[in-house]
Amino acid sequence: MIGLFILLRIGGRRKINVICIMMDTWRFDYAGCYGNKKIKTPNLDRFASEATLFENAYSEGVPTLPARMACFTGRYTFPFRPWQQLETHDVLLSSALDRAGYNTALISDTLPMRGDTLPNVRNYLTGNYMMGFKYVEWSDQTYFWLPRAPWLPKAKVTKEIIYRYWKDRGDHRDAIFRERIKRQLEARLLWKSDEDSFVAQTIKKAIAWLERQKDLDHIFLWLDTWDPHEPWDPPPPFDAMYVDPNYEGPRIIRASDGPVEGYLNEDELECIRGLYAGEVSMCDKWLGIFLKKVEELGLMENSLIIFLSDHGNFHGDHGLIHKARCWPYECMSHIPLVIRLPDGTGRGKRIDAFVDTTDIMPTILDFLEIKLPPARTSHEMLHGHSLLPLIRGEVDKVRDCAYMGWYRRAWAIREGDWKYIIYSGQNFVFTGKTKPELFNLRRDPNELENVIDEHRDLADQLELKLRRFISGLPPTLPAPPPRGGPAI
Amino acid sequence: MIGLFILLRIGGRRKINVICIMMDTWRFDYAGCYGNKKIKTPNLDRFASEATLFENAYSEGVPTLPARMACFTGRYTFPFRPWQQLETHDVLLSSALDRAGYNTALISDTLPMRGDTLPNVRNYLTGNYMMGFKYVEWSDQTYFWLPRAPWLPKAKVTKEIIYRYWKDRGDHRDAIFRERIKRQLEARLLWKSDEDSFVAQTIKKAIAWLERQKDLDHIFLWLDTWDPHEPWDPPPPFDAMYVDPNYEGPRIIRASDGPVEGYLNEDELECIRGLYAGEVSMCDKWLGIFLKKVEELGLMENSLIIFLSDHGNFHGDHGLIHKARCWPYECMSHIPLVIRLPDGTGRGKRIDAFVDTTDIMPTILDFLEIKLPPARTSHEMLHGHSLLPLIRGEVDKVRDCAYMGWYRRAWAIREGDWKYIIYSGQNFVFTGKTKPELFNLRRDPNELENVIDEHRDLADQLELKLRRFISGLPPTLPAPPPRGGPAI
Amino acid sequence: MIGLFILLRIGGRRKINVICIMMDTWRFDYAGCYGNKKIKTPNLDRFASEATLFENAYSEGVPTLPARMACFTGRYTFPFRPWQQLETHDVLLSSALDRAGYNTALISDTLPMRGDTLPNVRNYLTGNYMMGFKYVEWSDQTYFWLPRAPWLPKAKVTKEIIYRYWKDRGDHRDAIFRERIKRQLEARLLWKSDEDSFVAQTIKKAIAWLERQKDLDHIFLWLDTWDPHEPWDPPPPFDAMYVDPNYEGPRIIRASDGPVEGYLNEDELECIRGLYAGEVSMCDKWLGIFLKKVEELGLMENSLIIFLSDHGNFHGDHGLIHKARCWPYECMSHIPLVIRLPDGTGRGKRIDAFVDTTDIMPTILDFLEIKLPPARTSHEMLHGHSLLPLIRGEVDKVRDCAYMGWYRRAWAIREGDWKYIIYSGQNFVFTGKTKPELFNLRRDPNELENVIDEHRDLADQLELKLRRFISGLPPTLPAPPPRGGPAI
Amino acid sequence: MIGLFILLRIGGRRKINVICIMMDTWRFDYAGCYGNKKIKTPNLDRFASEATLFENAYSEGVPTLPARMACFTGRYTFPFRPWQQLETHDVLLSSALDRAGYNTALISDTLPMRGDTLPNVRNYLTGNYMMGFKYVEWSDQTYFWLPRAPWLPKAKVTKEIIYRYWKDRGDHRDAIFRERIKRQLEARLLWKSDEDSFVAQTIKKAIAWLERQKDLDHIFLWLDTWDPHEPWDPPPPFDAMYVDPNYEGPRIIRASDGPVEGYLNEDELECIRGLYAGEVSMCDKWLGIFLKKVEELGLMENSLIIFLSDHGNFHGDHGLIHKARCWPYECMSHIPLVIRLPDGTGRGKRIDAFVDTTDIMPTILDFLEIKLPPARTSHEMLHGHSLLPLIRGEVDKVRDCAYMGWYRRAWAIREGDWKYIIYSGQNFVFTGKTKPELFNLRRDPNELENVIDEHRDLADQLELKLRRFISGLPPTLPAPPPRGGPAI
Repeated sequence: MIGLFILLRIGGRRKINVICIMMDTWRFDYAGCYGNKKIKTPNLDRFASEATLFENAYSEGVPTLPARMACFTGRYTFPFRPWQQLETHDVLLSSALDRAGYNTALISDTLPMRGDTLPNVRNYLTGNYMMGFKYVEWSDQTYFWLPRAPWLPKAKVTKEIIYRYWKDRGDHRDAIFRERIKRQLEARLLWKSDEDSFVAQTIKKAIAWLERQKDLDHIFLWLDTWDPHEPWDPPPPFDAMYVDPNYEGPRIIRASDGPVEGYLNEDELECIRGLYAGEVSMCDKWLGIFLKKVEELGLMENSLIIFLSDHGNFHGDHGLIHKARCWPYECMSHIPLVIRLPDGTGRGKRIDAFVDTTDIMPTILDFLEIKLPPARTSHEMLHGHSLLPLIRGEVDKVRDCAYMGWYRRAWAIREGDWKYIIYSGQNFVFTGKTKPELFNLRRDPNELENVIDEHRDLADQLELKLRRFISGLPPTLPAPPPRGGPAI
Repeated sequence: MIGLFILLRIGGRRKINVICIMMDTWRFDYAGCYGNKKIKTPNLDRFASEATLFENAYSEGVPTLPARMACFTGRYTFPFRPWQQLETHDVLLSSALDRAGYNTALISDTLPMRGDTLPNVRNYLTGNYMMGFKYVEWSDQTYFWLPRAPWLPKAKVTKEIIYRYWKDRGDHRDAIFRERIKRQLEARLLWKSDEDSFVAQTIKKAIAWLERQKDLDHIFLWLDTWDPHEPWDPPPPFDAMYVDPNYEGPRIIRASDGPVEGYLNEDELECIRGLYAGEVSMCDKWLGIFLKKVEELGLMENSLIIFLSDHGNFHGDHGLIHKARCWPYECMSHIPLVIRLPDGTGRGKRIDAFVDTTDIMPTILDFLEIKLPPARTSHEMLHGHSLLPLIRGEVDKVRDCAYMGWYRRAWAIREGDWKYIIYSGQNFVFTGKTKPELFNLRRDPNELENVIDEHRDLADQLELKLRRFISGLPPTLPAPPPRGGPAI
Repeated sequence: MIGLFILLRIGGRRKINVICIMMDTWRFDYAGCYGNKKIKTPNLDRFASEATLFENAYSEGVPTLPARMACFTGRYTFPFRPWQQLETHDVLLSSALDRAGYNTALISDTLPMRGDTLPNVRNYLTGNYMMGFKYVEWSDQTYFWLPRAPWLPKAKVTKEIIYRYWKDRGDHRDAIFRERIKRQLEARLLWKSDEDSFVAQTIKKAIAWLERQKDLDHIFLWLDTWDPHEPWDPPPPFDAMYVDPNYEGPRIIRASDGPVEGYLNEDELECIRGLYAGEVSMCDKWLGIFLKKVEELGLMENSLIIFLSDHGNFHGDHGLIHKARCWPYECMSHIPLVIRLPDGTGRGKRIDAFVDTTDIMPTILDFLEIKLPPARTSHEMLHGHSLLPLIRGEVDKVRDCAYMGWYRRAWAIREGDWKYIIYSGQNFVFTGKTKPELFNLRRDPNELENVIDEHRDLADQLELKLRRFISGLPPTLPAPPPRGGPAI
Repeated sequence: MIGLFILLRIGGRRKINVICIMMDTWRFDYAGCYGNKKIKTPNLDRFASEATLFENAYSEGVPTLPARMACFTGRYTFPFRPWQQLETHDVLLSSALDRAGYNTALISDTLPMRGDTLPNVRNYLTGNYMMGFKYVEWSDQTYFWLPRAPWLPKAKVTKEIIYRYWKDRGDHRDAIFRERIKRQLEARLLWKSDEDSFVAQTIKKAIAWLERQKDLDHIFLWLDTWDPHEPWDPPPPFDAMYVDPNYEGPRIIRASDGPVEGYLNEDELECIRGLYAGEVSMCDKWLGIFLKKVEELGLMENSLIIFLSDHGNFHGDHGLIHKARCWPYECMSHIPLVIRLPDGTGRGKRIDAFVDTTDIMPTILDFLEIKLPPARTSHEMLHGHSLLPLIRGEVDKVRDCAYMGWYRRAWAIREGDWKYIIYSGQNFVFTGKTKPELFNLRRDPNELENVIDEHRDLADQLELKLRRFISGLPPTLPAPPPRGGPAI
C-alpha cells in the first residue's frame, strides 16, 4: 500500500482531494444502507457499498453549530461549548489545509453556519462564522428563517393555505410559526420541481464549482446542505412517496416543537414522517447527482469522500416532535457516516466501532499526510482520531466508549450495548428530565425502558467513565463568562 | 430624476446593482485622467469620461486593512484603529446589503484582507477577516508572502536570477527579501503572458461570477485586486513599456523598504517607476476587460460602479522607496476615485471637493435607498457622507477639510491648498519625523518645502481643526489594550 | 541644606515622615490665608504662615474619586478616567512607600473612597478601593448615604423637622433627598457638640493612631475627611457663626442639586453659605487640634506635611447649588494647597505657579528620596512634578499652563490670567453647555463674562495647547469599554 | 433558647459580636484537645472545653489564599480557584457584615493575604486583596519574604550563623533560602523574648483595638496570624521545650521544601518538629492572652468565637518537609476548628461530622440572623452550611462526605473512614503522583497504605461522588483564561 503510494508520487504527480458532504438532520435510520427497508436512498446505498459504513457514529455535540465545530476543530464540544462563535485559539481544518496549499471551498445553504444567530448580537449576518476557506458560497436559504428579498416574486399565501401545511398548538408561538410558514410558502409555492429546492441549488453550485476548477487537484470541498432539515416540503414525486394517499389531514411541513401528546394525532405524525422521508429521498437523489459528477470528473480515483449528517430528529420518538428537548437519544445523536478511500481500501466494509464527529479532521489530515505544527497549548490539541487505521483493518477501535451530549443540558456515554444519560439538575427549558437513564440498546433500541434502578452499579461505572473522560480531555477555554462554566 | 426613478419602479421591476473595483496601491497621479501624460490608462480614462472623477479623494487611513475598514464601515480609522480585525460592534456594508436581500460577493486576491496577518496570531489564514458577503472567492495570491504549494511546478531560480530582480541594501532584511523574491520568481517565471498575472486571475473570476448569475439584479460585487501592489513584475509588453531600453541594471521588482540614498541610484529608481507604470497599465488593461464585460452584460444601465485605490506609494518621493514611512503625503494618501451612476448623472464631471474612503458606504446605501436601523450606540453611526448630492450638483462639498493619517504615527489635514501634518512624538520606527509640516500644495505639489516657520498661526489653526474633528467623531471603541490608546 | 541633611543621616538616624491632610469640598476662597476676610480659619492660616501656600493649585480631575486617583497615582485623570476603580497597572503612592518600608496608614471617613459606589455594582462596600496602605481605618460615615445600623439609637425625625433642614424642589428627587435628610438627622440630632461630628471622629482616630506608634518614624499618614462636604450641619457655635440671626427660613443642610433659580431665594442661599462657612470653621478647629498634636509629638521637626482639598462647590455661583454641573470654574477646580517642609524651607512663601493634584505623589517621593523602579510601560510613568524645586526657589514654574476638567464632560486650560473651557458636544445631563468659554480671571475672577467672541484667536491657541497637552501625556489605558473612549 | 433570646432583645439591647481567630499552618494533631499528649496547648484546650470541637474539620482548598477565600465567601475553591485575587461577583463575609452595620476589623500579619503575590504582577503590595473590612491593620511581617526596612537595626548575621539555622539541599534554591534566612535572622536575633514575635505583635494589636472600641458591640474581628507558619524560630522557653537537649545539629527553622530523603536525617527532622511544636505552644500562649482579654472585656458573654487554622504541613510525613507537594493528606487538609457560642450551647461537645471552611460564613450569618439579599446569579450562592444546628444537636451532619483538594492538582473525598484522592494527570511540579489512592483512616490514620487495588469498586464509587459533588455546585466563574479551565 505505502509502497504503491510512494511509487505513484515518484512516477508522476499524484492528484489528491477531499470532499465532505454534510447533510443536516439526516437520521441514521432513514437510509437503506442503515437497514431501513422502506425509505429509498439508492444513491447513498450505492456509495456506501463502495465505501466503509460506520454503524456506530455519533455527533458528539448537537445541534447545528457544535456539530460542525467538532468536525472543523477535531475537538469535543459537548462539555465545553454552547452554540457559539469560534474561539480565537481554534486551529481550523480549513485553515490547516489552506496553509498546506489546498484549494479550499465551502458551498452551503446551512443558514446558522453563516451568520450571527447568537442571542444579543445585532441581527446582521456577518458571515464571520467558521470561515477559513479560500472560496465560500452561500446558496439561497430557506425563507423559514430569513425573509425573502422584497423584489422577488411571491406566491399569494392565504390563511387557508397556511393551515394546509401547519397546525396550531395553541400557544403564543403559533403566530410566529405561521408567519414563518407563510414566508416559506410564498417562495415554495413558486417552485416548479425539486430542481428549485435548496438542496438542488447547493448541489448544483458545488458541481459548477468543481467544473470550473482548471485542475481537479488538491481541492478540499465542504458541501453542506441544510436539507433534509425542516421544513419538510419536497416537491413531487417526493411529497407523495411515503404519505398515505388516503390521508386527508394537514400536510404539516414544520410542526411546533414540543410534546406530541395533545397536539398531533398519529395520522398527522405519520404524514410528517412521510414528508420527511420524501425530503430524505430528494436529498438522496441530489446526492446521487453530485456523486455522479464526482465520478465523471475522475475524482473518485483520487479523493477521500466523506458523507455524514450533523444529527437526527424526533418524529414522535419519546413523545416529541422536532428537537424540542436536549435528549441525546439514538434518534438524535446517532448519525450516518460513510467514508470512501480512493484506492478501494475498506470497500463494502461495515465498522461497528464507536466513532464521532471529532474524528473527521484527524482522518482528513492523516489521509493528506499533513502534520499540524506542534500544539503550543493544550487548546490546540486534537481530541479525535484518524479513522484510516480502522478502515484499513489495522485496529478494531479508536475509543472504548462513545460520548455525546448537549452543552450544559445532557451528557451520555455508550459502552457496548449500554447507553447511560445524565441530565443537568438545573431547570433548563429544554431538559425536562433530572433522573439519569440507562438503556440496553440491544434489547431496547428505541431507549424506552430505563433500567437504571436494576443496574445502579453499572450506571455508576458508566457515569464515572464519562466524567473521567471529560476531565481528561486537553482543556478547552470555557464558555464565555456570562454563560457560566460547564455544569452537569 | 426622482420622478423617473419612481416611474421605472412602478412600470416594471427595475434592476439595480453595485460594483466596486478597488485596485491596491494605484497612485492617483499614475493615470491619464488624473493628468499623467505618460502612463497609458485608456480604460480608466474612458470610464472616467462617462463618470464623475474626484480630484481630491483621500484614503483617510492607510495601509491595506484600515483603508478597507473605512470603506466597509463608513467610519474613520486613522485616529482609532491599527492594522486589526473587525470589531464586534461594526456594522458592515456587506452585512447591510445582505440583510436587504442583495446578492453580495467579494472576489479578490488581496492577501492581507484574507487572513491573520496580525502579530502574535498563529500563522494560519482563518479568513475570518472582513467577511459578511454571501460569496467569497480568493484568487491565487502573490507568492511573495505565502509559499507556493509544494506540488506546483516551480521555475529554477538561481542566485544569479534573483539579482536580476533585486538589489541588496546591506542589512539583515536582505536575506528575507531574497527568499521572497525567489518564491515569487519560481511562480512568475512560468507565466506565459499577463493572462497569468494576479490581476487577470481575479478579473477573470469576477467576470465568470457575473456570467454565472441567473439574474443580474440586486448584486453587490466588491472586486479587489492586489495589483498594482508590488512586486512590480508585469509580463510583456508591460515590462518594457516605460523602461529605458538602454537600461542595463537590475530590474528591481520589489526593493527593500527605506531611504533611497545610498541604496538605489536614479537609473534603478527610474526603472522601478517604469515597471510600476507597466503594472498600472496592465491593471488598466484588465480593468478595461472587466468593464467591457460589465457593459455587455447590461450592467452599465443599472449599476452604481465605483473605482478606487486604497493608497499610493513612494517611488523615490521624499527620498523613500515603498511605504517605508508613515508620511501621509499626497503620493500616499491621495487616491483615484471615479463613480459612475447608471442614469448618466455626473457624466464627465470632475469634482474637487474633499471626499474620502468613509464616503463609500454612505454613497452606496444612498444609491440603494437602504436605511440602516437606528444606531443603538454611537459606535454604529456612520462618519462618512453620501457623494450623490455632490455628483448631482446639489451641494458643492461634503466636508470643509480632508483628514487623513496613519494610526498612532501621523495625522494630517488639508484645507484649501494647505496641508498640515503632525507626527507622533513617540519613537516608532516608521515615523522618522517629529516636527510638524505645512505645505502649500498649489505652489509645492510635491510637499518638498515645509513652510511652517513662516505660517505658525495657520499651522495652529489647522491643527486645532484637525484635533477638534477627531474629538467630535462619534466615539469608537479604542484599540485593544496591549497597544495603548490613541496618541498624537 | 543637602550637606546638613547628609550630616543628620550620618550623625544619628534621622526621622522622616509624611502627613497628608485632605479635606473634601473645601473651597480655596473660604480660608483666611486665601484672602477671605470673613471666614475664620485661624489654624489653616497659622499652618500656612509656617509653610508654603500655593495660590494657583488645581484639582485636575473631579469629583471625589478622580481627585484622589490623581494624588495616589501622580497621573492625570480628566482626559482618561471616569469615576472608577483603580486600574491593574496603577503604581500607587501607598504601595511605593510601603515597599520602601514605610508605616503607611489611611484614616478617613470619605465614603466614596471606600466602597463600590460605581453603577451596576452590587451595593456592598468591598473596600477594595484605593488601598495599598498597611493600616486602614474608616470612621463612621455621614448617614446621608448609608443607613445607620438598626440597633443604634435614633432621634425621632418628623416631617416637620425635616422641612427645617430641607426644601423641596418639586421634582421626583425630593422624596429621595428627604429620606436621606431624615437618616442624617436621626443621627445628627443626637450629637452633643462638634466632638460628635464626622471630622472630629476622624481627626481623633488619626491622633490616636499617631499616639499608638512606638516610633514616630517613617510613617506615611493620609488623613482624609469628608467634611466640609455636605450636609452642612455643624453643631454650635459653628451653626450660628455666619448665619444672619434674623433669618427665619429653613436652614437647608443639603439642597437639591441644580439651578438656584426658581428654587432657592437669596436669603436661603446666604444661609446655606453661612452653614457651609460654619462647617469650614469647624473643620479648621479640628485641623488645629490635629496639627497641635503633630507638634506635640515632635513631628513638625521631621515631617513633610501637606494640606489640600479635592475640589470646591457651587453656592449659587453661576446660578447653581452643589456640583450639579461639570463646569470646571475656579469655585470648583481651584483648591487650597499648603506644603510644609520640616526644615523651614519655604516658610511663609506664597507661590503662584500652576500646580495640581498630580504633583502630590512626585513631591512626596522626591522628599523621601524614593526612586520608583523604571516604568515598564508608559502607563507607569508619572505625569506630575515634584514641587520641592519650586518651594526651594530653584525654579519658578513646573508647567506653563494649568489643565483641569471633568471626564468626558469638560476640559479647561489656564494660561496666565486666561481660562478657556470646552464642553463635550454630547448631551450629558451634567453639561448643559456646548459653547466654549474664555475668561480673563484678573478682570473677571468669577468667570461671568465669556469673551470668546472678542478673542477667537487666543481661544484657539489655548484649545490647541490643551489638546496637544492631552495627546502628549504618556498614554493611559482607556476607560472600560462600555463607557467608550475619551471624547471632547 | 429562642425564647430567652427574644427576651434579652426586648429587655434591653443585647450586645452581639463575632471574633474569628485564624492561625496559619497549625496542624490539627498538634493540640492537646485533638489528642496530642506531648504538645502543650493549655489555652486552646481550655477554650475547647468551653466550646464545641470539630473532630473532622477540613480546609477544602489550600494553601493560604484559597483557604481564606473559602472562609470569606462561603464557597468551595478547590475545583475552581487557584491562588488568585477576589472575583468581582464575590459576596464577602466582611462586606455583608459591614452592610448590616457591623464594626468590622481585620488585624493580621499574614503576608500573602495582603498583597500581590501573584505571578506576573509588579512586586508592590497593593493591599487590594480580600478587603471589605472597615478597619484593616497589618502587623510587621516575617522578614523571610519581605526585606526589612533599611533604617531598622539589624543583627550581624554571618554565614556561620546562617548554618546554625539552615541546611543546604544542594540545589539552586539554597542561595535563595540562605538569603531569606539571613534577612529573617537580622531581625530575629534582636528579639528579647516572645513578646517580639509576630504572633505577639498581632495579638497585642488586636487587644489594643478591642480596648479602644467605645462600645464592644456589633463588632466583627478577624484576627489572622501567620504563626505558627514557618520559619519556626520561637524564643525561649519555646525553642527548647520539645527539642532534645542533647541534639547538636543545626536547628533548622525553615527547610528547603521537598523530599526528606537524602536531605534531612531523623535527628534533624525531630528537631524541626520540636521547633514547630515550640512555635505552636508560643501561639497557644498568645491565644490564651487574647482570650483572657476577651473574657475581661466581657465579650465571652455575647460573642461567637471561632478558632481555626488554614491547613497543616508535612514534617517528614510521606517523606516530605513543608508543603512541597499538593497531597491533601490529613496532615495537610485536616484542621483544628473550635466554635464557642456565648450562651453555653455546645459547651464541651465534640462533633465528628464533616465540616469545612465554607461553613464559616454561613455559621456567622446564621448566628447574627443576617440574611443575604437573594442571589442574582448562582455565583452568589453560598456552598457551605451553618454549623449552629450541629452544635445545638438539631442535626448530626451537614454533608455526607468531606471534600478537599488543591486547585488543578489533587482532589479528595472522605466518606466514613475512607479517604480517596485523585491526582491530575498533568505534570505539575507539585504533584509527583498520578495513581489514585485509597486509605482507611481507622486502620491507617497516617495514609501510608494505598489499598485501591483491593477496593476498586469502592474507589470508583467515591470518585463518582466526588465528581458529582463538584458538578452539582452552583457554578463559579472559572479561573482566568490564561490558566485554562478546571481539570482533573
